[in-house]
Amino acid sequence: MPIPAPNLYPDFNIIRLSHVELFVSDLAWSRAYYVDTLGLQVTFEDADAIYLRAMEERGHHCVILRKGTGGEVGVLGFKVWDEGELDKAEAWFKTRDLPTQWIERPFMGRVLRTRDPWGVPLEFYAQMDRLPVIAQEYKLYRGVKPLRIDHFNLFSQNVDEAVKFYGDMGFRVTEYTADEETGRTWAAWMHRKGGVHDIAFTNGTGPRLHHMAFWVPTPLNIIDLLDLMATTGYVSNIERGPGRHGISNAFFLYIRDQDGHRTEIYCSDYQTLDPDLEPIKWDLKDPQRQTLWGAPAPQSWFELGSTFQGASLTESDLKAQPIVAP
Amino acid sequence: MPIPAPNLYPDFNIIRLSHVELFVSDLAWSRAYYVDTLGLQVTFEDADAIYLRAMEERGHHCVILRKGTGGEVGVLGFKVWDEGELDKAEAWFKTRDLPTQWIERPFMGRVLRTRDPWGVPLEFYAQMDRLPVIAQEYKLYRGVKPLRIDHFNLFSQNVDEAVKFYGDMGFRVTEYTADEETGRTWAAWMHRKGGVHDIAFTNGTGPRLHHMAFWVPTPLNIIDLLDLMATTGYVSNIERGPGRHGISNAFFLYIRDQDGHRTEIYCSDYQTLDPDLEPIKWDLKDPQRQTLWGAPAPQSWFELGSTFQGASLTESDLKAQPIVAP
Amino acid sequence: MPIPAPNLYPDFNIIRLSHVELFVSDLAWSRAYYVDTLGLQVTFEDADAIYLRAMEERGHHCVILRKGTGGEVGVLGFKVWDEGELDKAEAWFKTRDLPTQWIERPFMGRVLRTRDPWGVPLEFYAQMDRLPVIAQEYKLYRGVKPLRIDHFNLFSQNVDEAVKFYGDMGFRVTEYTADEETGRTWAAWMHRKGGVHDIAFTNGTGPRLHHMAFWVPTPLNIIDLLDLMATTGYVSNIERGPGRHGISNAFFLYIRDQDGHRTEIYCSDYQTLDPDLEPIKWDLKDPQRQTLWGAPAPQSWFELGSTFQGASLTESDLKAQPIVAP
Amino acid sequence: MPIPAPNLYPDFNIIRLSHVELFVSDLAWSRAYYVDTLGLQVTFEDADAIYLRAMEERGHHCVILRKGTGGEVGVLGFKVWDEGELDKAEAWFKTRDLPTQWIERPFMGRVLRTRDPWGVPLEFYAQMDRLPVIAQEYKLYRGVKPLRIDHFNLFSQNVDEAVKFYGDMGFRVTEYTADEETGRTWAAWMHRKGGVHDIAFTNGTGPRLHHMAFWVPTPLNIIDLLDLMATTGYVSNIERGPGRHGISNAFFLYIRDQDGHRTEIYCSDYQTLDPDLEPIKWDLKDPQRQTLWGAPAPQSWFELGSTFQGASLTESDLKAQPIVAP
Repeated sequence: MPIPAPNLYPDFNIIRLSHVELFVSDLAWSRAYYVDTLGLQVTFEDADAIYLRAMEERGHHCVILRKGTGGEVGVLGFKVWDEGELDKAEAWFKTRDLPTQWIERPFMGRVLRTRDPWGVPLEFYAQMDRLPVIAQEYKLYRGVKPLRIDHFNLFSQNVDEAVKFYGDMGFRVTEYTADEETGRTWAAWMHRKGGVHDIAFTNGTGPRLHHMAFWVPTPLNIIDLLDLMATTGYVSNIERGPGRHGISNAFFLYIRDQDGHRTEIYCSDYQTLDPDLEPIKWDLKDPQRQTLWGAPAPQSWFELGSTFQGASLTESDLKAQPIVAP
Repeated sequence: MPIPAPNLYPDFNIIRLSHVELFVSDLAWSRAYYVDTLGLQVTFEDADAIYLRAMEERGHHCVILRKGTGGEVGVLGFKVWDEGELDKAEAWFKTRDLPTQWIERPFMGRVLRTRDPWGVPLEFYAQMDRLPVIAQEYKLYRGVKPLRIDHFNLFSQNVDEAVKFYGDMGFRVTEYTADEETGRTWAAWMHRKGGVHDIAFTNGTGPRLHHMAFWVPTPLNIIDLLDLMATTGYVSNIERGPGRHGISNAFFLYIRDQDGHRTEIYCSDYQTLDPDLEPIKWDLKDPQRQTLWGAPAPQSWFELGSTFQGASLTESDLKAQPIVAP
Repeated sequence: MPIPAPNLYPDFNIIRLSHVELFVSDLAWSRAYYVDTLGLQVTFEDADAIYLRAMEERGHHCVILRKGTGGEVGVLGFKVWDEGELDKAEAWFKTRDLPTQWIERPFMGRVLRTRDPWGVPLEFYAQMDRLPVIAQEYKLYRGVKPLRIDHFNLFSQNVDEAVKFYGDMGFRVTEYTADEETGRTWAAWMHRKGGVHDIAFTNGTGPRLHHMAFWVPTPLNIIDLLDLMATTGYVSNIERGPGRHGISNAFFLYIRDQDGHRTEIYCSDYQTLDPDLEPIKWDLKDPQRQTLWGAPAPQSWFELGSTFQGASLTESDLKAQPIVAP
Repeated sequence: MPIPAPNLYPDFNIIRLSHVELFVSDLAWSRAYYVDTLGLQVTFEDADAIYLRAMEERGHHCVILRKGTGGEVGVLGFKVWDEGELDKAEAWFKTRDLPTQWIERPFMGRVLRTRDPWGVPLEFYAQMDRLPVIAQEYKLYRGVKPLRIDHFNLFSQNVDEAVKFYGDMGFRVTEYTADEETGRTWAAWMHRKGGVHDIAFTNGTGPRLHHMAFWVPTPLNIIDLLDLMATTGYVSNIERGPGRHGISNAFFLYIRDQDGHRTEIYCSDYQTLDPDLEPIKWDLKDPQRQTLWGAPAPQSWFELGSTFQGASLTESDLKAQPIVAP
């Protein structure tokens, strides 16, 4: 299927991705990993959950670590322009016969909870508590110096349909991989905020979260994180990289926590604000689309992901779709 | 005057700053400076003008060097969402009794030429020729590896009024300097594209262009440029830096061409997309707002700028307003 | 065999490694690779050979590319303190019944040609033409910005004996890998100039040159080279990395030219001047000694190397010693 | 006076500079500065003194902070090859009628205490306690990530005589500034360990210590330190930089503690091992020798320094020699 033209006048205005809720089996382990090692800042914690933000963020949180079934994702969150857009969002999902619910969430205003057609739990909001600026409190910087959450990447059983659905919502494609043999879209990167993506879809057993990503200042911060992880007991949590993607031109590293949640550390993609930006097409047979420098990704990277709460896969789902190593 | 609340629903939709036309006295000198030394790419040139783009840009040009009165600026250009927004822009300026004209410009679709109330020549457009992607043609990268035009900074006789006017147009303030003694705004940074600014206004003899700025990958590229300029005959064109601004948190360098046009090389500011982003207020008495590390700017930096064609200043203008060194 | 105590009072004073002669099948191809891509500077060339130096070197050359049997190495060169040390060197090799010869070499004073006990061709000299300083001619910097030749790494059939022989010559061990099961030394890094090594020996089918290495300013230069090679037709010449070695703590990249000569791009090891420096011992079973971050090296890296002219291996040699992947 | 030919066969073998003892008025303040902010590691502390080492050093200390008269320096330390060299050093100083004494120092073997002809307190030793390797304990890295002490820089009333004296001791000149008008040497950089300097002498009211210097991995670490100091109360301790020296080609930053002791943070000079290295001559009138990029140093940098215990200057000394700003 060809990539659809962008919907430049969507029915409601999503600003950007905002946050993710990760279920983890051991909060103490996850705190050591996400806070002490990666360098995210704790904005709230109790016995059940830890709320985190990155260094330049002023919203209350971009990650919620919640004690639960390790490796499951609670929800993907997005911020909309204002309260009116939130009402329009409700209408949009209702029109599509998708479940909608107004829920209470700490540190946030009205929250619209819904799911996409494949069961991925989504929430939208306009207001979240705003916190004091810490971007220039340099003594707080640690680990990889994460600046902000950058994107989500999902395994999808049908990337063409996902691109259609999220495209209707206003996400615009910046780059994609086409499978010339089948005519299908193998993967697509879609944005709202003017970078390469807020959300991406890759062919695979889905719906599952492949990774969340954090933006960092320079590739040297990624090297610093590698040195730190490699000498503090986290060497086996390093999965892939460092390297540069052909797609997005970003410098990357992939790491996985003990529950299997994958994080990409990411920097140096490009600005995509122009509505007439032409998506870049990559051939599935071109190995440089994944790693510009040629090194292959490990098999785990193609196979493993986090499930979504309430959208768990059956055994047969997990076996249904063989992953083609790129 | 307090900073006005942002206009979140402007009458027309500007995406981002786009380009600037600089008059230069010697095209060959300017080519050596902007192309061979800074590393901008030539997209067109003839006997009268050289068109340039930065490495990740796909629009035809971000700088036009035109043979003429060195040190004068022809126009500041902005891209709007679509042709309809361009018509709305015309109406907006007409309503304010400002001159509007549809002009022909090479490599661009319809161009609306106008001026702000102080005579600054502005142009708006929706379409510019799109060029092939060169972001990954790494053999083309030279000099400071400029990725994209980032912002304009203008001297203004009345920053409060400039903030009001551009704020009405939809530019939102991210940071500002308040003069506590007079109650006036000393300087303000305003954006459309989600960074710290597309345009900024600083108190001074205006209207004049203080500088245009280019985004580069990392501070090390700025160090590379300094080494190159210092050993190829451009040491006297280095004016200020390298350093980190308190305001914007960006790493910077200022250089000036032989006609006096100033360029900032800039990286690492932050994302400002949220409509509820609270502007950061700086006190005029805080020297760290300009250079976080404390080093003062040279006097030239406070005094010199490029005039705008058709808005030239009289001698008395130039003497009218003493610059207070910060 | 335990690592022998360093010989702190050697019979002659080698200052540092100096140069290598590589036979290549196509000088034009090699020029594009070593000069245009890596960034070495040509100091002399004719139809048969190209002489190269790195950016901070003042001696005439560190690499000679000579038209010949591609993948063969002509000689490894070392600089000694003065002419008297050269005479002592001659005596030292004669005492050991190794061949010595005074030969003529362009751009150099007296040259003592000899071989180590395994046939590796070595040459020693005190004087080489000195060239003007170009370290601050920043317009000449290209590619990976190579600053100086750093070391040689050799496959050896018997690392313990090689360590003994070169140790007697005054090379001091800084780090080594011990095979706890056999009691043998698996690999050893030995220096004269105060870094981790001028020469290293790794267990393998030898004698062969595993690689020569160049020192570069920072890891970002290595990333720049990867981007450049990946987009100018050299992606298949990238063999391993980037990464950090456990041994030496250096940041590295390995690349191979079309004849199979391997170059390491290397930075950030440490100072080893102290005569009482204790060698660091690594266990052959510790994978982090090779890559601190855990990623394995490809099989080619363990198997392929350049032969030495006049010390070519038989088929049975090449099969004699299976390489144990680390 | 022309620079004398290097003494390639000195009477005793100094390996490198080793350590410095600084008297400070408030150990707690100095600990916060040198340990928490710069990132040096404490190897011993009691009520009177704190011993520090940098990250790649294995000797027990490179800095001793001792409670005392703030701004005074106790001694400059150098390591010699072995105990025999230490005896030769004693003879060398005795021959010159300079005071020699064998003293006890914690964590060190035999220590020879002496003074140069201008009263600068020097000590030589062959053995200092060796500590475990921490270079790869990346969780310990803080601040500017100091790797090793790099050099001392002294104000001298007579640089030509200082160069003669230290040159006789075996220090070799790598770069120098000549005052063409007077024929005198204005400043000289002299090394033992193969970098640009272990010790340098600059014309000025002396003897005083201008600064000690630490080697760091990359310029980005210096930027990190600036950000940290600027936001943790140390902005007024930043004196000069960041910049690149023409002389040495090093990237630098100068900071001063509250007692006036100056530290240079330094990286990227070059290898100077060759005995036939030709010193680079700079003209006193060339401002790029100090800062390649052209920015002048502040007046304090030319005037302020630390006195040496037992070699204190009289008021008339301090007034005797006006500093010529370069």
